[in-house]
Amino acid sequence: MSDGLIRDLTDEEARASLRAKWGMAEEGVIPAWIAEMDYAPADCVTDALVDAVRQGVLGYPPFETGGQLGEAYAGFAARHFGQHVDPGHVRPVVDVTAGVRLLLDVLSGPGPMVMPVPAYSPQLEIAQITGRERVDLFVDPEAERAELDLDQLDRLLADGAQTLLLTQPHNPWGRVFTRAELEGVRDVVVRHGARVISDEIHAPLVLPGARHVSYLDLEGTADHAVALVAASKAFNTAGLKCAQLVIPDDATRKAIEDVPMARNDSWSSLGIVASIAAYTQGDAWLAALLERLDQQRTLLATLLAEHLPAARMRPLEATYLAWIDLRAYGHQRPAELAKERGRVWVYEGDAFHPGLSGHIRLNIATSPERLTEVVRRLASALA
Amino acid sequence: MSDGLIRDLTDEEARASLRAKWGMAEEGVIPAWIAEMDYAPADCVTDALVDAVRQGVLGYPPFETGGQLGEAYAGFAARHFGQHVDPGHVRPVVDVTAGVRLLLDVLSGPGPMVMPVPAYSPQLEIAQITGRERVDLFVDPEAERAELDLDQLDRLLADGAQTLLLTQPHNPWGRVFTRAELEGVRDVVVRHGARVISDEIHAPLVLPGARHVSYLDLEGTADHAVALVAASKAFNTAGLKCAQLVIPDDATRKAIEDVPMARNDSWSSLGIVASIAAYTQGDAWLAALLERLDQQRTLLATLLAEHLPAARMRPLEATYLAWIDLRAYGHQRPAELAKERGRVWVYEGDAFHPGLSGHIRLNIATSPERLTEVVRRLASALA
Ligand SMILES: Cc1ncc(COP(=O)(O)O)c(C=O)c1O
Ligand SMILES: Cc1ncc(COP(=O)(O)O)c(C=O)c1O
Repeated sequence: MSDGLIRDLTDEEARASLRAKWGMAEEGVIPAWIAEMDYAPADCVTDALVDAVRQGVLGYPPFETGGQLGEAYAGFAARHFGQHVDPGHVRPVVDVTAGVRLLLDVLSGPGPMVMPVPAYSPQLEIAQITGRERVDLFVDPEAERAELDLDQLDRLLADGAQTLLLTQPHNPWGRVFTRAELEGVRDVVVRHGARVISDEIHAPLVLPGARHVSYLDLEGTADHAVALVAASKAFNTAGLKCAQLVIPDDATRKAIEDVPMARNDSWSSLGIVASIAAYTQGDAWLAALLERLDQQRTLLATLLAEHLPAARMRPLEATYLAWIDLRAYGHQRPAELAKERGRVWVYEGDAFHPGLSGHIRLNIATSPERLTEVVRRLASALA
Repeated sequence: MSDGLIRDLTDEEARASLRAKWGMAEEGVIPAWIAEMDYAPADCVTDALVDAVRQGVLGYPPFETGGQLGEAYAGFAARHFGQHVDPGHVRPVVDVTAGVRLLLDVLSGPGPMVMPVPAYSPQLEIAQITGRERVDLFVDPEAERAELDLDQLDRLLADGAQTLLLTQPHNPWGRVFTRAELEGVRDVVVRHGARVISDEIHAPLVLPGARHVSYLDLEGTADHAVALVAASKAFNTAGLKCAQLVIPDDATRKAIEDVPMARNDSWSSLGIVASIAAYTQGDAWLAALLERLDQQRTLLATLLAEHLPAARMRPLEATYLAWIDLRAYGHQRPAELAKERGRVWVYEGDAFHPGLSGHIRLNIATSPERLTEVVRRLASALA
């Protein structure tokens, strides 16, 4: 199926192109785990890459803050988030995860890092590899919506934590924090003189009904926060390796520019090309994508109501990753069962929230047919 | 000029494609600094990349040791170095520098790292960013050829150093260490129970007359050494971000495979594609390249004899990077002068050997015409 600009990959195409998500799945298993979409990339991105390859843009990318990439991102942020970003504040980094590590290493005090949990699983290990302790700010699995408990945050910072890794829009809850919520976070952070790393990789994937507010768009955040952004999640180019830091504070930017090259290079020249194309020419494709994802979330609700009526899911405000509470079905590890019995590969919830049983994260960025089949298989596996 | 498979880029093409080397140079300045070649990439690499882009291979690459990439490298090593590599011992890493960092972080004891100096400049900072001290194993600037002083190595290891970062072929000396020399190194290392990280990125660039011996090809090295290899330097694809670890020891490989993802992912899907194409289909192009570089080193010798007769340069056995002693001309910082007065950008020697004056590293991987112009400009700047 193809609705205008969004073209679904066939299984064969997906296996050939999505080499982790599909390539690592056994024949016959439908993968709905890794955060990638079963759609063909935007033509503007493909065309820019083909041109760049033909032109031989395979060497080291320039080492610069700002530049064309900065301009491109600033334009995108203005159009999509109504946010003013100074192009000169944008600096590439190989990917978001490496960016978080860099910021911790270079900017953060040695105290613990606060991690809202559940969290994108590789980030559960990132504080530790920088020699810091991770302290968890749990979102109650029973909550009506994922909110950050400010009292708990206050206590963790009072107890010595020095950095908050904010993921917003939130993965896996799919929540978009409101300006008021973010202001609440900021006030607590400022009171303790802590730092914020704001992982906003999912910002372009805010679905109709919600609106992304960058943490940097709040007053009084520039001196203690850096945002991590990328075109990679929304444009399905995570393998091209280019994310961006947005660093509004001059001294902070200088500190990052001055790190030894071995701490921050490795972004790819083609990642830069793809990012610029996506940010400057990708609006129509992105609009079509959001429309499709909006339909997919509606379809998911219908499918769950029909096949897994005891599943609990909160409104998906952003991302194509649904966080589903299946505890009513009485299985500790539903994803494991789903893979064995149902031949469908979803993420086990405890990868995001250690110790939490009965949850899964399900990727809905596929065709309606595949999503339908995924939910059917899930239901039959858990029955 | 184009001799068969090697096509020289025009200035305009070079500026468009080599965005660090040429893109960062002012109009009118000839860049001969960063280790990239002013040649169009091999068609086999370009074609594989275009196919992959058209196929949508833009997502996360598979997380696997071995696989197609392992097979491709093993074939290359067998044909070019007569070395047996088990394909299952090959694992991707984003680039060589990140690989060195990973190996230090995960495998090395906390003691100092021995760095033969002069050295590829970003590696002068790598021990420190892993929290280790760097101790230098100087190659005497007066030496007839760059040899590693085994007594000095012995002392450094006796004094507590636990890792040797071996760069071989050596940059910037352009030396290819012989099997006998490497055995000498191994014996000292083994005596102290130290580890070796063998950076062999320049191995495919060994010029006629010498032969690359991997440190791993010596008996008794598998348990304490990992090699870092890449197609990126020889095939001019450093911006595509894929190098490889060769890890012969099972427990060591497992230790690397088990690190948190945030410590070792970030290689790009297109980097994998380019590496496989280069390793499996690039032999003819590489042969033509080595022929051209052989001609360029001969041309350089002629040019130096004519225009800079007091320059001292040892035989270039590998790489396209010439290490030139210009102290006879009486300038502390010849590269600075060359850029200001001569409009040619070469690397200042002290970037590789802190405190050493009067040396430059000159990149000869360009057209004969440009190399001629570069040496003329150098000569007039230093006169
Ligand atoms: C919140 C969040 N951050 C980061 C990432 C990964 O980004 P990268 O591949 O750029 O490290 C993901 C991937 O899904 C994510 O969900
Ligand atoms: C010896 C050596 N190692 C590593 C590198 C850089 O490799 P990478 O870009 O893969 O980090 C170079 C670049 O010229 C080099 O000369």
